[in-house]
Amino acid sequence: MAQDKVDIFDTTLRDGEQVPGCKLDATSKLAIAARLDELGVDIIEAGFPISSPGDFKAVEDISKLVKNARVCGLTRAVEKDINVAAEALQHAKRPRIHTGIGTSDSHIQYKFKATREEVLERAYKAVKHAKSFVEDVEFYAEDAGRTDNEFLARVCEKVIEAGATVLNIPDTTGYCLPDQYGTKIKYLIDNVKGIENATISCHCHNDLGLATANSIAGAINGARQIECTINGVGERAGNTALEEIVMVLRQHSHLNLDTNIDATLLNDTSRMVSESMGMPVQPNKAIVGANAFAHSSGIHQDGVIKKRETYEIINPADVGVDESAIILTARSGRAALAYRAKNIGFELDKKQLDKVYLEFLRVADIQKEVNDKDLPLIIKASNI
Amino acid sequence: MAQDKVDIFDTTLRDGEQVPGCKLDATSKLAIAARLDELGVDIIEAGFPISSPGDFKAVEDISKLVKNARVCGLTRAVEKDINVAAEALQHAKRPRIHTGIGTSDSHIQYKFKATREEVLERAYKAVKHAKSFVEDVEFYAEDAGRTDNEFLARVCEKVIEAGATVLNIPDTTGYCLPDQYGTKIKYLIDNVKGIENATISCHCHNDLGLATANSIAGAINGARQIECTINGVGERAGNTALEEIVMVLRQHSHLNLDTNIDATLLNDTSRMVSESMGMPVQPNKAIVGANAFAHSSGIHQDGVIKKRETYEIINPADVGVDESAIILTARSGRAALAYRAKNIGFELDKKQLDKVYLEFLRVADIQKEVNDKDLPLIIKASNI
Repeated sequence: MAQDKVDIFDTTLRDGEQVPGCKLDATSKLAIAARLDELGVDIIEAGFPISSPGDFKAVEDISKLVKNARVCGLTRAVEKDINVAAEALQHAKRPRIHTGIGTSDSHIQYKFKATREEVLERAYKAVKHAKSFVEDVEFYAEDAGRTDNEFLARVCEKVIEAGATVLNIPDTTGYCLPDQYGTKIKYLIDNVKGIENATISCHCHNDLGLATANSIAGAINGARQIECTINGVGERAGNTALEEIVMVLRQHSHLNLDTNIDATLLNDTSRMVSESMGMPVQPNKAIVGANAFAHSSGIHQDGVIKKRETYEIINPADVGVDESAIILTARSGRAALAYRAKNIGFELDKKQLDKVYLEFLRVADIQKEVNDKDLPLIIKASNI
Repeated sequence: MAQDKVDIFDTTLRDGEQVPGCKLDATSKLAIAARLDELGVDIIEAGFPISSPGDFKAVEDISKLVKNARVCGLTRAVEKDINVAAEALQHAKRPRIHTGIGTSDSHIQYKFKATREEVLERAYKAVKHAKSFVEDVEFYAEDAGRTDNEFLARVCEKVIEAGATVLNIPDTTGYCLPDQYGTKIKYLIDNVKGIENATISCHCHNDLGLATANSIAGAINGARQIECTINGVGERAGNTALEEIVMVLRQHSHLNLDTNIDATLLNDTSRMVSESMGMPVQPNKAIVGANAFAHSSGIHQDGVIKKRETYEIINPADVGVDESAIILTARSGRAALAYRAKNIGFELDKKQLDKVYLEFLRVADIQKEVNDKDLPLIIKASNI
């Protein structure tokens, strides 16, 4: 069966950039945009042009720079926002305006102090206005995760009528369970008139650690765009991590879904974004964490040395990592010790290995990690 | 409907401790064990006693210290491992031995060079032997995520016959999708004779970013124990994060599942473990990241200032965080600026706010974050 394509909409430079502690300057933004283009991202959300002169300029410069991807600017459902975004995007080869409004009762009542009918009207007008500038208009139904499905379907129909090409269904608060989010997407596919003329997009936040699972549930149920960021950076607990989405789809080819991403650039892109933003990636981060391919327990090391697939589903080279690290600690076994000793020129027989292993454990219990440079000293101290 | 209880099995001190870079010493291990007990964890996996003298002592000391939780020691399906674990656990009020063996064809063929029948026999013998020391024996079917369900059910029946009280079904390689993992658990509930005499446990790894979703899918389908670690530390991309499981269940009370955890200790426990281990938590980590409750975009800040629930599903105080942070950046709007200015004594009218906002954006575009101490200078420079 042919693989269906899922578009990757990267919002590292918008949702990712707006977080506390992020230190991205104008030059870094351009470098990241160029890299995202090389990575094979389909849409780059470059910023929120009306929010500040600096952000306007970033969107303008990225529009001039990017060769392949669509370039997108965020707006509220406000005429002035849309005018400014259109201006910032005017040099983009394939511009997209991303406009929208909150659709949950909580947002309508407390944020807008409006009614559902007023929100429908504002949504329609915003998309119409954006269409007067660009062909490609994405609409976000903010807090869709907590929006009643029937009303959400009405909003979608209305903005498709106005010409929306993409419908973004954000789980803004990161509240949904995968089944709930998947069911929501299925409901829209089954109930929105004209849905065949638009692409449904997932934009999931990670407040409960479920962003990746929710986005995948959305794609399984018919969404064909996923919004994500490198390293999952973003507002609060962040967005869906691009690297996780790409590798989930690649590891589960029975889903018949794939992206355009060149996964061999993932590891390097992760580092680049982390360093430019000053946003650290924890060692146990999936795919791109420093320990993602490191084995330290004896049971695991023994297995990996015998056959990599025993403990690794992803070949590290596929995501641009040089090789699985075999790290020696007090939890390492004889197999790993012999393997590393052999690597630096010491072939140990069984009896020698037993003696060296005891000395190794003594050292490892004290200093936690044992490096290659410690091994000759340990071997010497073992009097073999 | 009454809430069903899900046991929390914490393996921070075993699976979490065995990772590269972890700097836990004996004193810290005891302090963490005491804290886990206070947090309300049901089972503390204290270590892998046979792996080193240091780990043996840690399990022994933790056994003496812990008041409420069960204390558990890991073993392979090897008689000597089990003897040593039993010795290390002898002072525990409620000891548990955790033994097991790989059950996937990959593990059986490449790691053990054995047959399915031999593995069944080894599993049975290991549980029987462990039962001669303790009443509470948990069996792990390593790589269960890639084990054929029919054979897995046979393994489970066999070890229940031998007296296993808990069946751990690990997705060792972090490969499963939530639907697949949930279906596996349901298969066991429906097909294993004697399953009513044992508890099914989820042990999911995070290689594809799906550990939390998989564990929740397991619980929805009948598992009543979840194995996890503080901050999701663990081998490679880590384990299921305890804090995420607890809060997913609490936020989704319709699942009728809950844990014994005192969530108000989560934030402090996360810091304690991160600092003792030397394992950083990324700012965008769910629940316990530094930014988990920080709002910096103007749209979000405006919403949160009007009503917290617009953008937050969790009350920060519920997980021990003082308050949602309103951080000023170039992405912040007038509402947040006015709110922070008022907090430090400057009441601005609409006209003043417009002028101050322009100056604020100029500064924020340069220095990224604007602190309370910058505000008086910005207000002064605005000549209002």
